[in-house]
Amino acid sequence: MPDISKILVANRGEIALRVIRSCKELGKQTVAVYSTPDADAPHVLQADESVHIGPASSSESYLVIDKIIQAAKDTGADAIHPGYGFLSENADFSERCKEEGIIFIGPDAHAIKSMGDKTAAREIMSKANVPFPPGTKKELEDIEEAEKIANDIGYPVLVKAAAGGGGKGMRIVETKDEFKSGIKAAKSEARNAFGDDRVYIEKYLVEPRHVEFQIIADEHGNVLHVFDRECSIQRRHQKVIEEAPCSILTDELRAEMADAAIAAAEAVDYVGAGTIEFLVDADRNFYFLEMNTRLQVEHPVTELITGLDLVALQILVAEGKELPMTQDEITMNGHAVECRIYAEDPRDNFLPSTGTLHKHRIPSGNGIRVDSGVEEGQAVTINYDPMISKLCTYGNDRKHAIKRMLRALDEYEIAGCRTTIPFCKFVLNHNSFTSGEYDTHFVPDHFSEEKLNETITDDDKVKALAAALLKMEDQGEETTQKTGHPSTNGQTSPWWDRRSS
Amino acid sequence: MPDISKILVANRGEIALRVIRSCKELGKQTVAVYSTPDADAPHVLQADESVHIGPASSSESYLVIDKIIQAAKDTGADAIHPGYGFLSENADFSERCKEEGIIFIGPDAHAIKSMGDKTAAREIMSKANVPFPPGTKKELEDIEEAEKIANDIGYPVLVKAAAGGGGKGMRIVETKDEFKSGIKAAKSEARNAFGDDRVYIEKYLVEPRHVEFQIIADEHGNVLHVFDRECSIQRRHQKVIEEAPCSILTDELRAEMADAAIAAAEAVDYVGAGTIEFLVDADRNFYFLEMNTRLQVEHPVTELITGLDLVALQILVAEGKELPMTQDEITMNGHAVECRIYAEDPRDNFLPSTGTLHKHRIPSGNGIRVDSGVEEGQAVTINYDPMISKLCTYGNDRKHAIKRMLRALDEYEIAGCRTTIPFCKFVLNHNSFTSGEYDTHFVPDHFSEEKLNETITDDDKVKALAAALLKMEDQGEETTQKTGHPSTNGQTSPWWDRRSS
Repeated sequence: MPDISKILVANRGEIALRVIRSCKELGKQTVAVYSTPDADAPHVLQADESVHIGPASSSESYLVIDKIIQAAKDTGADAIHPGYGFLSENADFSERCKEEGIIFIGPDAHAIKSMGDKTAAREIMSKANVPFPPGTKKELEDIEEAEKIANDIGYPVLVKAAAGGGGKGMRIVETKDEFKSGIKAAKSEARNAFGDDRVYIEKYLVEPRHVEFQIIADEHGNVLHVFDRECSIQRRHQKVIEEAPCSILTDELRAEMADAAIAAAEAVDYVGAGTIEFLVDADRNFYFLEMNTRLQVEHPVTELITGLDLVALQILVAEGKELPMTQDEITMNGHAVECRIYAEDPRDNFLPSTGTLHKHRIPSGNGIRVDSGVEEGQAVTINYDPMISKLCTYGNDRKHAIKRMLRALDEYEIAGCRTTIPFCKFVLNHNSFTSGEYDTHFVPDHFSEEKLNETITDDDKVKALAAALLKMEDQGEETTQKTGHPSTNGQTSPWWDRRSS
Repeated sequence: MPDISKILVANRGEIALRVIRSCKELGKQTVAVYSTPDADAPHVLQADESVHIGPASSSESYLVIDKIIQAAKDTGADAIHPGYGFLSENADFSERCKEEGIIFIGPDAHAIKSMGDKTAAREIMSKANVPFPPGTKKELEDIEEAEKIANDIGYPVLVKAAAGGGGKGMRIVETKDEFKSGIKAAKSEARNAFGDDRVYIEKYLVEPRHVEFQIIADEHGNVLHVFDRECSIQRRHQKVIEEAPCSILTDELRAEMADAAIAAAEAVDYVGAGTIEFLVDADRNFYFLEMNTRLQVEHPVTELITGLDLVALQILVAEGKELPMTQDEITMNGHAVECRIYAEDPRDNFLPSTGTLHKHRIPSGNGIRVDSGVEEGQAVTINYDPMISKLCTYGNDRKHAIKRMLRALDEYEIAGCRTTIPFCKFVLNHNSFTSGEYDTHFVPDHFSEEKLNETITDDDKVKALAAALLKMEDQGEETTQKTGHPSTNGQTSPWWDRRSS
């Protein structure tokens, strides 16, 4: 396969910019695609060329395979990087690229499909001896048999949609009495959400941690792991704070899980970067959760502890090259933490808080990495994911990285919308987090708006007042977007900048 | 010695901010001092407390020992960090802190004095077997004897002021005929510049590289080196682009030089962070140049390849603690490059180009570190060093770090003054630099305004036009400062933003 010379990035926001940055460092030409409201977005400005592909709605722009392929042809791009989300795990898209003679920087349709269907994945992983939580081996056919299994493994049990993933399509059945009605409800939900009512049963793990392994594989049979990430701090099954490495893994457990991750990738002849997600229970047993066949949002923490550029490696293996290192040559040093900074209001049920970023001054200095897709003066809109940036810190050890993150969050200046920065500070200052004694229930167990209010300092109030004043000065300008949610009715408070409404 | 709880930072700009950041991460309270024009500077805003110490002129503010000591007493600071420049290598200041019971975060007066006086340093280093360029052993007393030595080592020779340093107080004598008049002129210059006419003679090295070693020492007798930096890219003896590690050192030479650096520090019972500068000639002989008894501007490249926080280590040893690692535990990975970004015009003899930063958008993403002391909307003035920021990149190897630096320089948006970014790009793209085949004469040998003009791309022109437009929009505002230099008479060109005048 010849070297790639021009890469179309079929995405937007920080991940499009992040891919473009690696392309520049590799000397590859770049093509951005953009919807109408993204015409001046940073990913468009930083790319060598750009193609308008439709209106704001993703289903008319970033999700339209024909438009992306046409843009690649029109600009002579010989490869497409899908980023994460949008078309990144769409097997048809991977297949279509292949048919059109365009390199898809990601795995082939077979691997995407195998891992996208949760029961298919379960079957493949079982054969590869990757551990699973006890449950039905595949989708539930005989409800009586399933009930017997549920009784055996003990309640509560999880009913999961075969077509689900990323926390979507799951239902907890608490007791034996609720079993049949629970299955019925789960099937109905799955049918509505995915057009596919297949479900299966799994043991509901107590105090689970979400621990995942990054892998990278070439087409010459080399599958390497790039260590682990801890992603247990989640809100409604969405990761919000991630770390690398995971602080609860012993060397033995890490080695065992890495072997399982490699076996999982090998089982589908995987080529590219991927992530095998596991749940680790209170007794430190680990179970396969799912495999993501794309770059992960939280990949920067892995880059920080290993010094690798995962996007550069994705491109390299997409060019058919052999991975330039052995497993032993991948080492980790220090500790990294990522906070996803969203335009959401942690004091109002995390409702989107869109608007123009009147001020966006990112923290800097030693051990800081910021990946942002929005610039000062630009708007965060309801059209897409309201993430403003991913803020990562690196330190000698976990404590150092956390201290540095708190320093960075203090430095970060955003005016024009409310953000999840106070939420992040709350978590990072919490004893359960700093001690490392927490699980995926951290947020429901420990966080509330009331508790957050108790942590607001005078300094925070002064900063928020300053931001509010700045916004008021600009009142003539059209700066905010209606989020359309009934409770975003312009409430203000003295220590936060004005609510977008 | 008790732990330090509150640190006064006796400096301004990026280095004051950099020190404050480490203090925050360590949980130390901070006190900023500031001159009138620095009232809203980032270092003041980020510190817990701040004290006004006088007008713009350094000699009435940042250089006044009494004012700094008083500020420390008034705020209850138990330690002072001097940064670099200003009072950082002032033995009287170190001594005065001691007398007042305030911890000086740096070496004692004896070490500062020994290394500040170049002939004294020469004598101490000779005893410690640190290699020197051939020349007079100490300051020149007998001019006939000196001329004989000059004849022996061969012309050209360097005449150096004993009180000089950092490239100041040097004169080249090209031939035997010029010797006596050269000495006379050098003595007269030294008397005028330093109030001290002692000079000595040294062999003028052909194609020298400037290579320096970072060391850190505690008061328990542990002296460790933190590897080397390459600083040969200089303009008028001022470093402008630095790297770590130095690409021309073999493992053997590195070990030999590290031993010499440690011997140099031990010879003055050094405690704290310091730098031993060497010149390396074309035959890879190395010679002691000078020791800087403070944090170096370019210390971030060392932090990037080692993961250490040198300011945190300075504070730790100032608290009387033992260094928490052995020499073997300090390892280096990858490569780092630093570009000093100045508000100077590389197309007009590097004249200061002061003014308000209408735009200051720092590059970000993987492997980027920015240390800046100025924010968007604030002014770069003629009062102090016109450095806007230090931009560092980290990569797997030298080539990677350079490519990343070029990407970062491309991303960097500054409007309101001209900068040295085009100069940095010129150097980083130059064959001599990328091949590693260069010496301290790189700038006079390879750089000229004409050559720079040839490298300006259309993209650069578009960016410069956009910046110029932005500045014109703000024309009602008082944005620029007179530099007072006769040639800054408002010349403009279509691809650079407007000249401050």
